Amino acid sequence: MVEIPAQAKCVFKGVIFDVYQWEQEMYDGTTEIFEKLRRASTVEIIATTPEGKILVQRQEQPDNKASFLSLVGGRIEQGEEPLEAAKREMLEETGFSSNQWNHLETYDGSNKVDWKNFIYTAQNCHKISEQHLDAGERIEVREVTFDEFIDLVESHQLKRICESLRQRCIRAKYHQPSHEAFYKLIYG
Amino acid sequence: MVEIPAQAKCVFKGVIFDVYQWEQEMYDGTTEIFEKLRRASTVEIIATTPEGKILVQRQEQPDNKASFLSLVGGRIEQGEEPLEAAKREMLEETGFSSNQWNHLETYDGSNKVDWKNFIYTAQNCHKISEQHLDAGERIEVREVTFDEFIDLVESHQLKRICESLRQRCIRAKYHQPSHEAFYKLIYG
Repeated sequence: MVEIPAQAKCVFKGVIFDVYQWEQEMYDGTTEIFEKLRRASTVEIIATTPEGKILVQRQEQPDNKASFLSLVGGRIEQGEEPLEAAKREMLEETGFSSNQWNHLETYDGSNKVDWKNFIYTAQNCHKISEQHLDAGERIEVREVTFDEFIDLVESHQLKRICESLRQRCIRAKYHQPSHEAFYKLIYG
Repeated sequence: MVEIPAQAKCVFKGVIFDVYQWEQEMYDGTTEIFEKLRRASTVEIIATTPEGKILVQRQEQPDNKASFLSLVGGRIEQGEEPLEAAKREMLEETGFSSNQWNHLETYDGSNKVDWKNFIYTAQNCHKISEQHLDAGERIEVREVTFDEFIDLVESHQLKRICESLRQRCIRAKYHQPSHEAFYKLIYG
Protein backbone atom coordinates (compact mmCIF):
# COMPACT_ATOMS: atom_id res chain seq x y z
CA MET A 1 0.00 0.00 0.00
CA VAL A 2 1.28 3.44 -0.91
CA GLU A 3 1.03 6.30 1.52
CA ILE A 4 1.55 9.72 0.04
CA PRO A 5 2.57 12.01 2.94
CA ALA A 6 0.14 14.77 3.94
CA GLN A 7 2.70 17.47 3.09
CA ALA A 8 3.12 16.21 -0.50
CA LYS A 9 2.06 18.65 -3.22
CA CYS A 10 0.18 17.68 -6.33
CA VAL A 11 2.57 18.97 -9.01
CA PHE A 12 0.66 17.60 -12.00
CA LYS A 13 -2.95 16.57 -12.55
CA GLY A 14 -3.40 14.26 -15.51
CA VAL A 15 -6.26 12.36 -17.08
CA ILE A 16 -5.51 9.16 -15.15
CA PHE A 17 -2.46 9.96 -13.03
CA ASP A 18 -1.74 12.80 -10.58
CA VAL A 19 1.89 13.35 -9.59
CA TYR A 20 2.80 14.19 -5.99
CA GLN A 21 6.19 15.40 -4.75
CA TRP A 22 7.61 16.31 -1.38
CA GLU A 23 10.93 17.23 0.23
CA GLN A 24 12.10 14.15 2.07
CA GLU A 25 14.73 14.34 4.79
CA MET A 26 17.36 11.68 4.22
CA TYR A 27 19.28 9.73 6.89
CA ASP A 28 22.16 12.23 6.82
CA GLY A 29 19.92 15.30 7.24
CA THR A 30 20.04 16.38 3.58
CA THR A 31 16.80 16.52 1.59
CA GLU A 32 15.70 15.12 -1.78
CA ILE A 33 12.53 15.38 -3.84
CA PHE A 34 10.47 12.20 -3.53
CA GLU A 35 7.70 11.40 -5.98
CA LYS A 36 4.64 9.16 -6.01
CA LEU A 37 1.52 8.92 -8.13
CA ARG A 38 -2.17 8.70 -7.50
CA ARG A 39 -4.28 6.85 -10.04
CA ALA A 40 -8.07 6.81 -10.36
CA SER A 41 -9.58 3.78 -8.61
CA THR A 42 -10.88 0.94 -10.75
CA VAL A 43 -13.09 -2.14 -10.48
CA GLU A 44 -12.57 -5.63 -11.83
CA ILE A 45 -15.27 -8.29 -11.88
CA ILE A 46 -15.28 -12.08 -11.94
CA ALA A 47 -18.79 -12.58 -13.30
CA THR A 48 -20.30 -16.07 -13.46
CA THR A 49 -23.40 -17.39 -15.21
CA PRO A 50 -25.95 -19.91 -13.87
CA GLU A 51 -24.16 -22.50 -16.09
CA GLY A 52 -20.90 -21.90 -14.20
CA LYS A 53 -19.14 -19.99 -16.96
CA ILE A 54 -16.98 -16.90 -16.34
CA LEU A 55 -17.44 -13.80 -18.52
CA VAL A 56 -14.27 -12.60 -20.23
CA GLN A 57 -14.01 -10.04 -22.96
CA ARG A 58 -11.97 -9.79 -26.11
CA GLN A 59 -11.40 -6.11 -26.51
CA GLU A 60 -9.61 -3.67 -28.73
CA GLN A 61 -8.62 -0.12 -27.83
CA PRO A 62 -8.30 2.87 -30.15
CA ASP A 63 -4.53 3.25 -29.63
CA ASN A 64 -3.69 -0.38 -30.34
CA LYS A 65 -5.16 -2.63 -33.02
CA ALA A 66 -4.09 -5.83 -31.23
CA SER A 67 -7.08 -7.25 -29.39
CA PHE A 68 -6.64 -8.82 -25.97
CA LEU A 69 -8.63 -10.78 -23.39
CA SER A 70 -9.50 -9.22 -20.06
CA LEU A 71 -12.00 -9.37 -17.25
CA VAL A 72 -14.97 -7.01 -17.08
CA GLY A 73 -14.02 -3.75 -15.39
CA GLY A 74 -13.16 -0.10 -15.64
CA ARG A 75 -12.61 3.20 -13.89
CA ILE A 76 -14.72 4.43 -10.97
CA GLU A 77 -16.31 7.78 -11.83
CA GLN A 78 -16.27 10.87 -9.65
CA GLY A 79 -18.65 10.44 -6.70
CA GLU A 80 -19.40 6.81 -7.53
CA GLU A 81 -19.21 3.96 -4.99
CA PRO A 82 -16.99 1.04 -6.08
CA LEU A 83 -19.88 -1.48 -6.14
CA GLU A 84 -22.03 0.96 -8.10
CA ALA A 85 -19.18 1.32 -10.64
CA ALA A 86 -18.85 -2.46 -10.89
CA LYS A 87 -22.58 -2.86 -11.64
CA ARG A 88 -22.47 -0.03 -14.19
CA GLU A 89 -19.35 -1.33 -15.96
CA MET A 90 -20.73 -4.87 -16.20
CA LEU A 91 -24.02 -3.66 -17.63
CA GLU A 92 -22.35 -1.29 -20.12
CA GLU A 93 -19.65 -3.70 -21.28
CA THR A 94 -21.63 -6.94 -21.34
CA GLY A 95 -25.36 -6.24 -20.87
CA PHE A 96 -25.27 -8.67 -17.92
CA SER A 97 -26.68 -8.02 -14.46
CA SER A 98 -26.45 -9.84 -11.12
CA ASN A 99 -28.14 -9.73 -7.71
CA GLN A 100 -25.27 -11.56 -5.97
CA TRP A 101 -22.26 -9.32 -5.57
CA ASN A 102 -19.35 -9.98 -3.23
CA HIS A 103 -16.25 -7.94 -2.59
CA LEU A 104 -13.34 -10.36 -3.07
CA GLU A 105 -10.40 -8.06 -2.26
CA THR A 106 -8.96 -4.64 -2.88
CA TYR A 107 -5.63 -4.55 -4.65
CA ASP A 108 -3.45 -1.71 -3.39
CA GLY A 109 -1.16 -1.07 -6.33
CA SER A 110 2.57 -0.85 -6.54
CA ASN A 111 4.83 0.91 -4.07
CA LYS A 112 5.00 4.02 -6.26
CA VAL A 113 1.35 4.36 -7.25
CA ASP A 114 -1.55 4.97 -4.89
CA TRP A 115 -4.14 2.98 -6.82
CA LYS A 116 -7.03 0.93 -5.52
CA ASN A 117 -8.56 -1.81 -7.66
CA PHE A 118 -11.76 -3.18 -6.11
CA ILE A 119 -12.28 -6.78 -7.13
CA TYR A 120 -15.79 -8.24 -7.04
CA THR A 121 -17.47 -11.53 -7.81
CA ALA A 122 -20.92 -11.38 -9.40
CA GLN A 123 -22.80 -14.68 -9.36
CA ASN A 124 -25.78 -15.90 -11.36
CA CYS A 125 -25.35 -13.18 -14.01
CA HIS A 126 -28.08 -12.81 -16.64
CA LYS A 127 -28.12 -10.84 -19.87
CA ILE A 128 -30.76 -8.15 -19.50
CA SER A 129 -29.77 -5.67 -22.20
CA GLU A 130 -27.46 -4.96 -25.11
CA GLN A 131 -23.95 -3.56 -24.53
CA HIS A 132 -23.63 0.22 -24.24
CA LEU A 133 -20.06 0.84 -25.29
CA ASP A 134 -18.11 4.10 -25.13
CA ALA A 135 -16.61 5.55 -28.29
CA GLY A 136 -13.28 4.08 -27.11
CA GLU A 137 -14.47 0.50 -26.60
CA ARG A 138 -14.81 -2.57 -28.84
CA ILE A 139 -15.74 -5.51 -26.68
CA GLU A 140 -16.90 -9.01 -27.49
CA VAL A 141 -18.11 -11.06 -24.52
CA ARG A 142 -17.14 -14.71 -24.18
CA GLU A 143 -17.93 -17.36 -21.61
CA VAL A 144 -15.24 -19.76 -20.38
CA THR A 145 -15.13 -22.50 -17.76
CA PHE A 146 -13.30 -22.04 -14.45
CA ASP A 147 -10.36 -24.15 -15.61
CA GLU A 148 -10.21 -22.39 -18.99
CA PHE A 149 -10.11 -19.10 -17.06
CA ILE A 150 -7.26 -20.35 -14.83
CA ASP A 151 -5.30 -21.42 -17.92
CA LEU A 152 -5.91 -18.15 -19.80
CA VAL A 153 -4.66 -16.12 -16.85
CA GLU A 154 -1.77 -18.40 -15.91
CA SER A 155 -0.47 -18.39 -19.50
CA HIS A 156 -0.87 -14.60 -19.85
CA GLN A 157 -3.34 -15.01 -22.74
CA LEU A 158 -5.71 -13.01 -20.56
CA LYS A 159 -3.94 -9.71 -19.93
CA ARG A 160 -4.42 -6.62 -17.77
CA ILE A 161 -5.68 -8.60 -14.84
CA CYS A 162 -4.83 -7.57 -11.32
CA GLU A 163 -1.55 -9.08 -10.09
CA SER A 164 -3.24 -10.58 -7.04
CA LEU A 165 -5.78 -12.40 -9.23
CA ARG A 166 -3.06 -13.77 -11.48
CA GLN A 167 -1.28 -15.10 -8.39
CA ARG A 168 -4.51 -16.79 -7.26
CA CYS A 169 -4.82 -18.41 -10.71
CA ILE A 170 -1.24 -19.71 -10.70
CA ARG A 171 -1.77 -21.22 -7.24
CA ALA A 172 -5.10 -22.69 -8.37
CA LYS A 173 -3.47 -24.29 -11.40
CA TYR A 174 -0.77 -26.10 -9.45
CA HIS A 175 -2.21 -26.55 -5.95
CA GLN A 176 -5.51 -28.39 -5.48
CA PRO A 177 -6.48 -26.80 -2.11
CA SER A 178 -5.93 -23.34 -3.65
CA HIS A 179 -8.01 -24.44 -6.67
CA GLU A 180 -10.89 -25.44 -4.38
CA ALA A 181 -10.65 -22.29 -2.25
CA PHE A 182 -10.64 -20.00 -5.30
CA TYR A 183 -13.55 -21.90 -6.86
CA LYS A 184 -15.54 -21.45 -3.65
CA LEU A 185 -14.77 -17.71 -3.57
CA ILE A 186 -16.03 -17.28 -7.12
CA TYR A 187 -19.05 -19.59 -7.13
CA GLY A 188 -20.02 -19.38 -3.42
CA MET B 1 4.60 -3.85 -23.26
CA VAL B 2 3.59 -0.21 -23.45
CA GLU B 3 3.99 1.73 -26.66
CA ILE B 4 3.73 5.48 -26.31
CA PRO B 5 2.85 6.83 -29.79
CA ALA B 6 5.43 8.99 -31.56
CA GLN B 7 3.07 12.00 -31.62
CA ALA B 8 2.60 11.93 -27.81
CA LYS B 9 3.86 15.00 -25.96
CA CYS B 10 5.71 14.91 -22.68
CA VAL B 11 3.41 17.13 -20.56
CA PHE B 12 5.27 16.62 -17.26
CA LYS B 13 8.82 15.56 -16.40
CA GLY B 14 9.14 14.24 -12.86
CA VAL B 15 11.90 12.72 -10.75
CA ILE B 16 10.89 9.15 -11.61
CA PHE B 17 7.88 9.45 -13.90
CA ASP B 18 7.33 11.45 -17.10
CA VAL B 19 3.74 11.91 -18.26
CA TYR B 20 2.84 11.65 -21.97
CA GLN B 21 -0.47 12.66 -23.55
CA TRP B 22 -1.87 12.59 -27.06
CA GLU B 23 -5.13 13.19 -28.90
CA GLN B 24 -6.53 9.79 -29.72
CA GLU B 25 -9.17 9.30 -32.37
CA MET B 26 -11.99 7.12 -31.04
CA TYR B 27 -14.05 4.59 -33.00
CA ASP B 28 -16.77 7.18 -33.72
CA GLY B 29 -14.35 9.82 -35.05
CA THR B 30 -14.33 11.97 -31.88
CA THR B 31 -11.05 12.49 -30.01
CA GLU B 32 -10.02 12.12 -26.38
CA ILE B 33 -6.82 12.80 -24.46
CA PHE B 34 -4.97 9.54 -23.77
CA GLU B 35 -2.22 9.34 -21.16
CA LYS B 36 0.66 7.01 -20.41
CA LEU B 37 3.79 7.22 -18.29
CA ARG B 38 7.46 6.57 -18.78
CA ARG B 39 9.46 5.46 -15.77
CA ALA B 40 13.24 5.26 -15.41
CA SER B 41 14.54 1.75 -16.12
CA THR B 42 15.67 -0.37 -13.19
CA VAL B 43 17.66 -3.52 -12.47
CA GLU B 44 16.89 -6.39 -10.10
CA ILE B 45 19.43 -9.08 -9.22
CA ILE B 46 19.18 -12.66 -7.99
CA ALA B 47 22.67 -12.95 -6.51
CA THR B 48 23.94 -16.31 -5.27
CA THR B 49 26.96 -17.24 -3.16
CA PRO B 50 29.32 -20.22 -3.63
CA GLU B 51 27.37 -21.87 -0.75
CA GLY B 52 24.14 -21.67 -2.77
CA LYS B 53 22.53 -18.88 -0.75
CA ILE B 54 20.60 -15.99 -2.32
CA LEU B 55 21.28 -12.41 -1.20
CA VAL B 56 18.22 -10.54 0.04
CA GLN B 57 18.16 -7.24 1.84
CA ARG B 58 16.17 -5.92 4.74
CA GLN B 59 15.84 -2.24 3.98
CA GLU B 60 14.24 0.87 5.31
CA GLN B 61 13.49 4.04 3.35
CA PRO B 62 13.38 7.63 4.64
CA ASP B 63 9.63 8.07 3.98
CA ASN B 64 8.58 4.88 5.75
CA LYS B 65 9.93 3.48 9.01
CA ALA B 66 8.62 -0.04 8.28
CA SER B 67 11.49 -2.15 7.01
CA PHE B 68 10.91 -4.65 4.25
CA LEU B 69 12.74 -7.44 2.42
CA SER B 70 13.69 -7.05 -1.22
CA LEU B 71 16.14 -8.22 -3.82
CA VAL B 72 19.26 -6.25 -4.66
CA GLY B 73 18.52 -3.60 -7.28
CA GLY B 74 17.90 -0.01 -8.20
CA ARG B 75 17.57 2.62 -10.86
CA ILE B 76 19.72 2.75 -14.00
CA GLU B 77 21.54 6.08 -14.18
CA GLN B 78 21.69 8.36 -17.22
CA GLY B 79 24.00 6.89 -19.85
CA GLU B 80 24.53 3.65 -17.94
CA GLU B 81 24.13 0.18 -19.48
CA PRO B 82 21.73 -2.13 -17.59
CA LEU B 83 24.43 -4.68 -16.72
CA GLU B 84 26.75 -1.90 -15.57
CA ALA B 85 23.96 -0.60 -13.32
CA ALA B 86 23.38 -4.09 -11.91
CA LYS B 87 27.07 -4.48 -11.03
CA ARG B 88 27.19 -1.00 -9.47
CA GLU B 89 24.01 -1.49 -7.43
CA MET B 90 25.15 -4.87 -6.09
CA LEU B 91 28.52 -3.49 -5.07
CA GLU B 92 27.04 -0.37 -3.44
CA GLU B 93 24.19 -2.11 -1.62
CA THR B 94 25.95 -5.31 -0.55
CA GLY B 95 29.72 -5.04 -1.16
CA PHE B 96 29.43 -8.25 -3.23
CA SER B 97 30.85 -8.80 -6.72
CA SER B 98 30.47 -11.53 -9.35
CA ASN B 99 32.12 -12.61 -12.60
CA GLN B 100 29.14 -14.68 -13.73
CA TRP B 101 26.28 -12.47 -14.84
CA ASN B 102 23.30 -13.61 -16.89
CA HIS B 103 20.33 -11.67 -18.17
CA LEU B 104 17.28 -13.63 -16.99
CA GLU B 105 14.49 -11.50 -18.50
CA THR B 106 13.28 -7.95 -18.98
CA TYR B 107 9.99 -7.11 -17.36
CA ASP B 108 8.00 -4.66 -19.45
CA GLY B 109 5.78 -3.00 -16.89
CA SER B 110 2.07 -2.48 -16.79
CA ASN B 111 -0.09 -1.40 -19.72
CA LYS B 112 -0.02 2.23 -18.59
CA VAL B 113 3.65 2.62 -17.73
CA ASP B 114 6.57 2.28 -20.13
CA TRP B 115 9.04 0.81 -17.64
CA LYS B 116 11.78 -1.73 -18.21
CA ASN B 117 13.13 -3.77 -15.31
CA PHE B 118 16.21 -5.77 -16.32
CA ILE B 119 16.50 -8.91 -14.23
CA TYR B 120 19.90 -10.55 -13.82
CA THR B 121 21.35 -13.54 -12.07
CA ALA B 122 24.82 -13.15 -10.56
CA GLN B 123 26.49 -16.42 -9.57
CA ASN B 124 29.38 -17.16 -7.27
CA CYS B 125 29.18 -13.74 -5.57
CA HIS B 126 31.95 -12.76 -3.15
CA LYS B 127 32.14 -9.91 -0.67
CA ILE B 128 34.95 -7.65 -1.81
CA SER B 129 34.16 -4.39 -0.01
CA GLU B 130 31.92 -2.66 2.50
CA GLN B 131 28.53 -1.28 1.47
CA HIS B 132 28.46 2.25 0.02
CA LEU B 133 24.95 3.39 0.79
CA ASP B 134 23.21 6.57 -0.39
CA ALA B 135 21.85 9.04 2.15
CA GLY B 136 18.41 7.50 1.43
CA GLU B 137 19.37 3.86 2.07
CA ARG B 138 19.50 1.61 5.15
CA ILE B 139 20.21 -1.91 4.01
CA GLU B 140 21.13 -5.07 5.88
CA VAL B 141 22.18 -8.00 3.69
CA ARG B 142 20.95 -11.52 4.48
CA GLU B 143 21.56 -14.89 2.87
CA VAL B 144 18.70 -17.35 2.40
CA THR B 145 18.38 -20.76 0.74
CA PHE B 146 16.56 -21.20 -2.57
CA ASP B 147 13.49 -22.66 -0.85
CA GLU B 148 13.49 -19.93 1.80
CA PHE B 149 13.59 -17.39 -1.02
CA ILE B 150 10.65 -19.07 -2.79
CA ASP B 151 8.64 -19.00 0.45
CA LEU B 152 9.51 -15.37 1.25
CA VAL B 153 8.36 -14.26 -2.20
CA GLU B 154 5.31 -16.52 -2.43
CA SER B 155 4.06 -15.32 0.97
CA HIS B 156 4.73 -11.65 0.14
CA GLN B 157 7.18 -11.32 3.04
CA LEU B 158 9.65 -10.24 0.38
CA LYS B 159 8.11 -7.19 -1.26
CA ARG B 160 8.76 -4.94 -4.24
CA ILE B 161 9.86 -7.81 -6.43
CA CYS B 162 9.05 -7.86 -10.09
CA GLU B 163 5.66 -9.45 -10.83
CA SER B 164 7.22 -11.93 -13.26
CA LEU B 165 9.66 -13.15 -10.59
CA ARG B 166 6.87 -13.57 -8.07
CA GLN B 167 4.98 -15.67 -10.61
CA ARG B 168 8.08 -17.85 -11.13
CA CYS B 169 8.30 -18.33 -7.34
CA ILE B 170 4.66 -19.33 -7.00
CA ARG B 171 5.04 -21.87 -9.82
CA ALA B 172 8.27 -23.14 -8.26
CA LYS B 173 6.57 -23.64 -4.90
CA TYR B 174 3.73 -25.75 -6.24
CA HIS B 175 5.10 -27.34 -9.42
CA GLN B 176 8.26 -29.47 -9.24
CA PRO B 177 9.31 -29.07 -12.93
CA SER B 178 9.02 -25.26 -12.53
CA HIS B 179 11.06 -25.53 -9.30
CA GLU B 180 13.82 -27.38 -11.14
CA ALA B 181 13.77 -25.02 -14.13
CA PHE B 182 13.94 -21.91 -11.94
CA TYR B 183 16.75 -23.43 -9.83
CA LYS B 184 18.73 -24.12 -13.00
CA LEU B 185 18.22 -20.55 -14.25
CA ILE B 186 19.54 -19.14 -10.98
CA TYR B 187 22.39 -21.54 -10.23
CA GLY B 188 23.34 -22.52 -13.78
